Amino acid sequence: MEISTYQKVFEKYLESIIENEQNLEPRNLYDPIWYIMSIGGKRLRPVLTMMGCDVFKGDINSALPAALAVEMFHNFTLIHDDIMDNADLRRGKQTVHVKWDVNTGILSGDALMVMANQYFEFYEGESFKKIIKLFNETALKVCEGQQMDMDFEKSNGVSLSEYYKMISLKTGVLIGSALKMGAIVSNAKDKEANLIYEFGLALGIAFQLQDDFLDSFGDESFGKTIGGDIVEGKKTFLMLKTLEACTPEEKLKLLSANSTNENEIERIKWVKDLFKKYKADVLLKNEIDFYTKKAFEYLEDMKMPSEKKLILNSFGQYLMGRKI
Amino acid sequence: MEISTYQKVFEKYLESIIENEQNLEPRNLYDPIWYIMSIGGKRLRPVLTMMGCDVFKGDINSALPAALAVEMFHNFTLIHDDIMDNADLRRGKQTVHVKWDVNTGILSGDALMVMANQYFEFYEGESFKKIIKLFNETALKVCEGQQMDMDFEKSNGVSLSEYYKMISLKTGVLIGSALKMGAIVSNAKDKEANLIYEFGLALGIAFQLQDDFLDSFGDESFGKTIGGDIVEGKKTFLMLKTLEACTPEEKLKLLSANSTNENEIERIKWVKDLFKKYKADVLLKNEIDFYTKKAFEYLEDMKMPSEKKLILNSFGQYLMGRKI
Repeated sequence: MEISTYQKVFEKYLESIIENEQNLEPRNLYDPIWYIMSIGGKRLRPVLTMMGCDVFKGDINSALPAALAVEMFHNFTLIHDDIMDNADLRRGKQTVHVKWDVNTGILSGDALMVMANQYFEFYEGESFKKIIKLFNETALKVCEGQQMDMDFEKSNGVSLSEYYKMISLKTGVLIGSALKMGAIVSNAKDKEANLIYEFGLALGIAFQLQDDFLDSFGDESFGKTIGGDIVEGKKTFLMLKTLEACTPEEKLKLLSANSTNENEIERIKWVKDLFKKYKADVLLKNEIDFYTKKAFEYLEDMKMPSEKKLILNSFGQYLMGRKI
Repeated sequence: MEISTYQKVFEKYLESIIENEQNLEPRNLYDPIWYIMSIGGKRLRPVLTMMGCDVFKGDINSALPAALAVEMFHNFTLIHDDIMDNADLRRGKQTVHVKWDVNTGILSGDALMVMANQYFEFYEGESFKKIIKLFNETALKVCEGQQMDMDFEKSNGVSLSEYYKMISLKTGVLIGSALKMGAIVSNAKDKEANLIYEFGLALGIAFQLQDDFLDSFGDESFGKTIGGDIVEGKKTFLMLKTLEACTPEEKLKLLSANSTNENEIERIKWVKDLFKKYKADVLLKNEIDFYTKKAFEYLEDMKMPSEKKLILNSFGQYLMGRKI
């Protein structure tokens, strides 16, 4: 099945849910929920849950409640993260705490988290227990990842291994779990469910690393603003690797992002040149390749028909936006 | 079993959990959780879960994980409510968002909610499913109650029936559910589990109404500050009942709490006199009696040995602080 087909099936299901529930009261609690759930995005995580079910020969319709729960959880994290990051826009639209207010963002986020939990009630017995355990474990890890990300802002002693842990928790784990939930719904064997989780985790790490790469070295013709991470002084792979290698003077300048009055464009150029000087860009490309290949190795180990493997393979290529 | 005995058993269990988990990382995520869980309170809700188990002849130790989950959920709501209400103190100590910051409060609250969910994983099969469904339903209702409470601040058209709905959702439902979870853990029949829920719900409403009464007419010698609700202009039973009955001039003055420069003590006296003039205090006492009696009627209908009924009866009297 094509990725766009999963997306369409999911969107149709989501629309039917919103149509049924859009008048829930109190409106100030539920309206922000339907608002953020409606402004879209690529629906990567729910697609993965449907795919994880499909590749183990489950009926994708049976994966829809779990897929919705995963998307709801993801949107709950977006509402709260946008408050914490003081972000005004999300997918080109006003964030919930800007359109309403911070209190609404906190409480609607909380309610959305509970609603995510409720959609798992569609499952029974052992599957239900497995999926709830996986979900709770995942949700807690995502919180830990977000905390590490916030801690990094205030710390100048972040190691690369801490960085990897942070992106695994904040991004990778949910990608892996979304897939594994689909596997659980279709009663896949534990071994296979674990392999698809590892596939997703590695792919999620590769995806996040690529995001870091594109933020500094992406193609501006696609409308992406270059250098956001640099301006914010974020501790990305590029930054941490360069900090490891550069001179004390460069280090001082690199870490003083917010305290200089330097022109922003010049600053971005200087930092990018420094990344290149110490080959952080090349090293990062190697890391992206490493994690992408690692993901595909897990895929090789899975027991499923080759046409099913092709679905996961295509997704990996779609996500990474290139042939490997 | 005495209430203080349940409390001691719970405190001991909580201490053992904190001792095991207090070094969880990242510390900035988990420290605020152990902080709020340690600053005490009466542990009413976990006591109720243990009691709900005990009266249906369950082993109270088997109710401890659910009791802890309920207390964790309650503390999660406190962290987030304190942010929304801009409260500096909780149980005489700094609130989480004051001791740390708002972002920490949001994220640690989220993590605490997830941890609450995890403690239900101790249960299996049908009990597990029942308890999760009840918990999700309850959690969503508590969010709805908090939203209604916030909405009321900005509205001058709140009806008494909306007020009852709000206090049921915000306070009553969790009291009822805490008891019912204990009943589920001890495999009580659905009918009995529902009756104990109704007992708790009615008692929770009576308790909240009494709280409103005491805020205006309590005994200051117990250290309680009188008139907090009046100064805030809160839409309590007393306020809403008086608004229904008073003259347009009195109504105008009653609703303009924050816009006058009146002396606070004089203001409180004037409002209290108005409450009395329209007998809102007498009517409220009647309502408290009505819901307390209603609770004890549900208790009568339950099938359990009289010594078990006595436990619930004693709790009701302890909570309402008086003989009925």
